[in-house]
Amino acid sequence: MMKPEEQLKIITRNAVHVETEAELLAKLREGRPLRVKYGADPSAPDLHLGHSVTLRAMRDLQDLGHQIVFIIGDFTGMLGDPSGKSQTRPQLTREQVEANAETYARQVSKILDMERAEVRNNSEWLGALTPYDVIRLAAQATVAQMLARDDFGQRYRDNQPLGVHELLYPIFQGYDSVAVEADIELGGTDQIFNFLFARELQRGVGQAPQIPITRPLIPGLDGQQKMSKSLGNYVGLTDPPDEMYGKLMSIPDALMEQYCRLCTDVPEAEIEQMAREMASGGLNPRDAKMRLAREIVGTYHSPEAASAAQEAFTRLFAGGKKDPGLETLLEAAEEAVLAADLEGQAVWLSKALVLAGLAPSASEARRLVQQGGVWVGEGKASDAQAEITLTDGLLLRVGKRRVRVVRFG
Amino acid sequence: MMKPEEQLKIITRNAVHVETEAELLAKLREGRPLRVKYGADPSAPDLHLGHSVTLRAMRDLQDLGHQIVFIIGDFTGMLGDPSGKSQTRPQLTREQVEANAETYARQVSKILDMERAEVRNNSEWLGALTPYDVIRLAAQATVAQMLARDDFGQRYRDNQPLGVHELLYPIFQGYDSVAVEADIELGGTDQIFNFLFARELQRGVGQAPQIPITRPLIPGLDGQQKMSKSLGNYVGLTDPPDEMYGKLMSIPDALMEQYCRLCTDVPEAEIEQMAREMASGGLNPRDAKMRLAREIVGTYHSPEAASAAQEAFTRLFAGGKKDPGLETLLEAAEEAVLAADLEGQAVWLSKALVLAGLAPSASEARRLVQQGGVWVGEGKASDAQAEITLTDGLLLRVGKRRVRVVRFG
Repeated sequence: MMKPEEQLKIITRNAVHVETEAELLAKLREGRPLRVKYGADPSAPDLHLGHSVTLRAMRDLQDLGHQIVFIIGDFTGMLGDPSGKSQTRPQLTREQVEANAETYARQVSKILDMERAEVRNNSEWLGALTPYDVIRLAAQATVAQMLARDDFGQRYRDNQPLGVHELLYPIFQGYDSVAVEADIELGGTDQIFNFLFARELQRGVGQAPQIPITRPLIPGLDGQQKMSKSLGNYVGLTDPPDEMYGKLMSIPDALMEQYCRLCTDVPEAEIEQMAREMASGGLNPRDAKMRLAREIVGTYHSPEAASAAQEAFTRLFAGGKKDPGLETLLEAAEEAVLAADLEGQAVWLSKALVLAGLAPSASEARRLVQQGGVWVGEGKASDAQAEITLTDGLLLRVGKRRVRVVRFG
Repeated sequence: MMKPEEQLKIITRNAVHVETEAELLAKLREGRPLRVKYGADPSAPDLHLGHSVTLRAMRDLQDLGHQIVFIIGDFTGMLGDPSGKSQTRPQLTREQVEANAETYARQVSKILDMERAEVRNNSEWLGALTPYDVIRLAAQATVAQMLARDDFGQRYRDNQPLGVHELLYPIFQGYDSVAVEADIELGGTDQIFNFLFARELQRGVGQAPQIPITRPLIPGLDGQQKMSKSLGNYVGLTDPPDEMYGKLMSIPDALMEQYCRLCTDVPEAEIEQMAREMASGGLNPRDAKMRLAREIVGTYHSPEAASAAQEAFTRLFAGGKKDPGLETLLEAAEEAVLAADLEGQAVWLSKALVLAGLAPSASEARRLVQQGGVWVGEGKASDAQAEITLTDGLLLRVGKRRVRVVRFG
């Protein structure tokens, strides 16, 4: 194994918080493969670039000879939202959990070597807890500690319902660390509370506490909010090459540096140079983003796919044209195949966008229209409640690049 | 069975809150014995007059032909304080729970016919919950609902530790109602939150919700704070006749009416008449309190014991003397038998009072001395840290009536 000091440098690259470097170094000096916990939520199996930040850091650990413990959160996944108040956390069957975990692992395997990972379902230990155990675990946290978390505290202060069971989830997540005897837990900065709480539970049973290492949450394609599936501002790890490429070309210039640093293998020195040249006007941001897009498509598909995507993109926006013509669009458009009985029906534009897969929800569709980023055919749309008739060949477009031609199946 | 309307009148006598009378009447009209839940805390087996308020109301229900379900809270009793932060909730063994439950039931049997009660341990159903069940139950309550409780909310706002597990206890208590299919739950006004929450859980599983009926918490002997063992301002249901009688004679005159109404069978009309006569000066408050003390000693001991206690009291305070002489005190004093090796030792007065059973704690002893209610021999004590030598025949006295002569065994 590499020297502990050198490992430390790699492991803490781009980290926001390490608790603590001294403890981490001591663990590395033990010279054994450390156990690196990764918790997967089987109710949300679609991974995006935001997830890749942590996964890439885990890949580094794996390359250094450490042991990835991939924990499938089937315990809570099969509960869904037991208060029945949230539609976003449906109750999953055992089969759905397994199918989602499979989907999740397939995407993760684009980054990690899943053959070498230890895969565990947390129902194995959480499902075996007695109610006495649950109370003893819950007694390790105070309500004030829990409400000190940004998300819980905000909901409580805003009079949004916060179920008592939700206070148990971080406790169970912490107990996962005890069960797998985690040495390291990696994640986004929003996870630090849970990671630190796990340390307390581990100390409580006499285990050496895990080392939490957090990294930044990357902004979404809009550059405003954090990347998330529900906001629609994401690059999915399974997006087709052209879509992935086009989405990355659409980001604000200022994001290039951060995406490059956290989501690619481009060396730090090179990133800094690109940033400097962009700032001085020596490098066209478009070229820098093309570099970024090529790297990422190359990673999740292949260098060949990246070249092809770049060619298609260049053709579409040839000569620096900002807005391609209808013919070019039609050529580049993906098909959205709708149910046959929808043909000829009149629906709100917002609904049509959802049906065509251009928006995850009607409210998101309305937002897109309000921002002036939606076209029907060649005309820019201004009213999400405009009635449009679903016809074969109807062309819908969001932003510069996401074009769908409606067909019926 | 008695007519529902007449039953309603008896059952809701002195009630503060009934949720709702209409529902209660509907249940009574079903003509079956209703199931009346009573939860006993086996970590606090000493009952006092405060508890008798609810127990007497249950006795009324029992007399009307309804079924008392006596639930021993062994589930949480055996957990103690799992956070390890409170010394007042020690973890009990199965044997201690059983012994305490036995002690509890023996005291309850002074009021209820325990032969006819259904006795259950709540570990029977709570101990059988899976962790999934616990989460589903916890999901029925929000954190805001829980913090709306006076006690929880106050501790949270005062930055006192409030464990996450403590939010689970009212939920488990509510689930007791589901498990025994309670029709009615009786208790003090401080229980209304728990009682109402149980209704939600019952509705959740399709049960007709129980009817909570609450009654006032009676003030302690000091007339200031609610009666409680930890405050030392209580009349225990097992106090000896003289002590019980003396304590009741020591209450502020203003309490007579409330104690009579909530703790005795004296008819309402008579209570009101006594109150009127006391107000107009036609009845000496001392005589009214003698009536109260006789009633209560008669209930928990016997009419003969009540007469004897009254005689002893009258002798002690013959002729309206406010302060009896040493001889009279000695005659009336109970013995406090201390360990032989304590003889001749010098201790702080506060310690001596605890040893003699005149104060539950040194801090309470200090309070009594500060209030000017402690005598050593005939002299009033002013300093709880005065050193006194433990000798045979030492006379210690708290208030007018609680006198101990020190002996060694």
